[in-house]
Amino acid sequence: MADRGQLLAAARQFGTPLYVYDIDAIRARLALLRETFGSQFGISFAVKSNPNVALLKALAGHVDTFDVSAFAEVERAVAAGCEVERITFCGPAKRDEEIRRAVRLGLGELVVESLREARLADRFAGGLGTRQTVLLRINPATAPRQFGVNMAGKPSQFGIDEEEMAEAIDAIAALPNLDLAGFHIYAGSNSLSAGAIAENFGIMTAVFRRAAAHWGRAPAKLIFGAGFGVPYLPADEALDLAGLAGEMLPAIAALRAEPAFARTRLMLELGRWLVGPCGWLLSSIIAGKTSRGTMIRICDAGFNNHLAAYGMMGSVIRRNWRIANLSNPDGEPGRYTVVGPLCTTIDTLATKLELPQLSAGDVIAIENSGAYGLTSSPTRFISHPEPREAMLEGGRLADISESLLNHWRLADN
Amino acid sequence: MADRGQLLAAARQFGTPLYVYDIDAIRARLALLRETFGSQFGISFAVKSNPNVALLKALAGHVDTFDVSAFAEVERAVAAGCEVERITFCGPAKRDEEIRRAVRLGLGELVVESLREARLADRFAGGLGTRQTVLLRINPATAPRQFGVNMAGKPSQFGIDEEEMAEAIDAIAALPNLDLAGFHIYAGSNSLSAGAIAENFGIMTAVFRRAAAHWGRAPAKLIFGAGFGVPYLPADEALDLAGLAGEMLPAIAALRAEPAFARTRLMLELGRWLVGPCGWLLSSIIAGKTSRGTMIRICDAGFNNHLAAYGMMGSVIRRNWRIANLSNPDGEPGRYTVVGPLCTTIDTLATKLELPQLSAGDVIAIENSGAYGLTSSPTRFISHPEPREAMLEGGRLADISESLLNHWRLADN
Repeated sequence: MADRGQLLAAARQFGTPLYVYDIDAIRARLALLRETFGSQFGISFAVKSNPNVALLKALAGHVDTFDVSAFAEVERAVAAGCEVERITFCGPAKRDEEIRRAVRLGLGELVVESLREARLADRFAGGLGTRQTVLLRINPATAPRQFGVNMAGKPSQFGIDEEEMAEAIDAIAALPNLDLAGFHIYAGSNSLSAGAIAENFGIMTAVFRRAAAHWGRAPAKLIFGAGFGVPYLPADEALDLAGLAGEMLPAIAALRAEPAFARTRLMLELGRWLVGPCGWLLSSIIAGKTSRGTMIRICDAGFNNHLAAYGMMGSVIRRNWRIANLSNPDGEPGRYTVVGPLCTTIDTLATKLELPQLSAGDVIAIENSGAYGLTSSPTRFISHPEPREAMLEGGRLADISESLLNHWRLADN
Repeated sequence: MADRGQLLAAARQFGTPLYVYDIDAIRARLALLRETFGSQFGISFAVKSNPNVALLKALAGHVDTFDVSAFAEVERAVAAGCEVERITFCGPAKRDEEIRRAVRLGLGELVVESLREARLADRFAGGLGTRQTVLLRINPATAPRQFGVNMAGKPSQFGIDEEEMAEAIDAIAALPNLDLAGFHIYAGSNSLSAGAIAENFGIMTAVFRRAAAHWGRAPAKLIFGAGFGVPYLPADEALDLAGLAGEMLPAIAALRAEPAFARTRLMLELGRWLVGPCGWLLSSIIAGKTSRGTMIRICDAGFNNHLAAYGMMGSVIRRNWRIANLSNPDGEPGRYTVVGPLCTTIDTLATKLELPQLSAGDVIAIENSGAYGLTSSPTRFISHPEPREAMLEGGRLADISESLLNHWRLADN
């Protein structure tokens, strides 16, 4: 993992705010994943978690498929050198036009989330004289306990409710221009509990079994939404991957032992767990003050640069993320309220967080920022210059920013 | 105000998602403001609320000054034809480089939020052999009751705490290259209570009085952060402007009666109240389903297009905004949960909101979207095409989108 010196060098070279992604660390996590789960699972990377094309390019040869959620993400995957056969397209509201383009391009798999999508794909494929491989997304009727963000067991825009899957499978199997290859479930995300995730895999395998039994065919592919979380908060403990494998793998082995699943390709779809911990948002302290007894430090990255770290990405209560003082790690500890440069009180990154003495000019690192960072943020708010993005690979830093239009140019007088 | 037919015509012409701003309605609100408050106040428009250059251009001749919060907003104001003398630059974390550029450009006023900013401006002005007009931002010690978002009376990054203003005024007045012109307070925003706003104006005038008394000079200018709110929720009642004027104007008249303030220019700084109600985000329903008893409609605008309407811009609990079914206003009412196209459960616009029957293809309007809409949203999330922006003026529609790079091009095969 990138060390303090490397991050500081990146901040010096490119200025702040700056996202840094350690590509070697991402590959190491991929290797760990493959080692832990053996050859049981292929890996599908969720492009939405970090769609930077240079990063996708660096990952394209190391993952099995790219999972995309909009047609523009197909274009990104292709620009990164990924073959269209290795692209899986999910999303609850694909536009007609997106489905048509996907079919015409010969996309590896379309995950249909409704009969509407299946019928559209069938019609477009028929019109083009081609066939389209599809997976059916199912929304389970039951959710694991202790799954933070979950989509199962309640009304949802995602997929076909499990209660209705039998009719949906029949209807899709009857469409003349589609090849139903299997099923997809993504029922929850960002869990740090190996027990909850294992329980979720149990629910998914049970639903997949029932779906295959109703269909009466051996699925070529099953996609498991991983839901592996990342320890954003100081008190969070990282997911115990080995423990999870210990709980999960027997159930997977049991599934595999059944004839219907002996040759099925099982996929783990994930984004956050893979790239989140391998990215940092670096920010400089512009000014400090003590206001009514509180030590306030104002940094150059606001929620315009990192919505999630500011607690505005689905959190009900903002909590301090893991933040490091890179430039003064051994300073006398103090309790600092760290805010961004925006003209609003909601631009608060940390409240009374203990950090080594933090002064104007110091550089801080917001950890776990490799996923759902820059592109999940309202970068145009107040028109501040956008953070650059840098990639660390083999000890070397590269500028992988996608647009220099709105970046802060120190040299520009 | 734009009617249903005009909005539908805009959706047909430009596709959805689409922001529409009614410039005539904005000008009518400006006229109402001037009529209500007589000649007591000049109007300063907060560019951050809607920085679209075409919109700024349409407003430049109708407001007195543009209030900007980052140097890039200066560039927008200038691009819109605003003279640099009519630009006021606020913001709690101006970078050295931003202050230098502002001074070199001869910006009308720099609102200094700290002694650091004042000293930097003084140094840059000295180096350039020029002088810089500044206002001092003060953070009051007391806040009105019932002010939703307020910045006063607590630790804050904004301005100089009232408790410390005397020393700050002395220090700034002593800087050789600055002309202190007066004071600025922005203590809260988005209030619908005339009583709370009037109370806030009372607090502001009291602080301004104390500041001027300590300084011993007659301020040339005082800027009052208006804090006028907008009725986002169905149960909200619009701010009673006439009632507010009735409560406020006697206190303003009393201030004016004092010799120190007889010639002072008083400014109302506002953005949301002016443009918010004159803008709509139009979105089409892509698909509908009934899931576990709930009628779900998926539209083509998610929180990527309108963070605030999805309850992710500082709201603790998401509440349904005012939404209209434009294409089927007389349909049988039903209770719909309206979601966006993003792959996450937090992409929920409305929960069980009563609307006329809503079907695929229908166009909805999210009201009060003229301020803090497009540019306050994470438009790159999941790489969906960006909404266009259209302006309605004199009954004619103009495309005022700033970039066509990422827009959905229906004609593009």
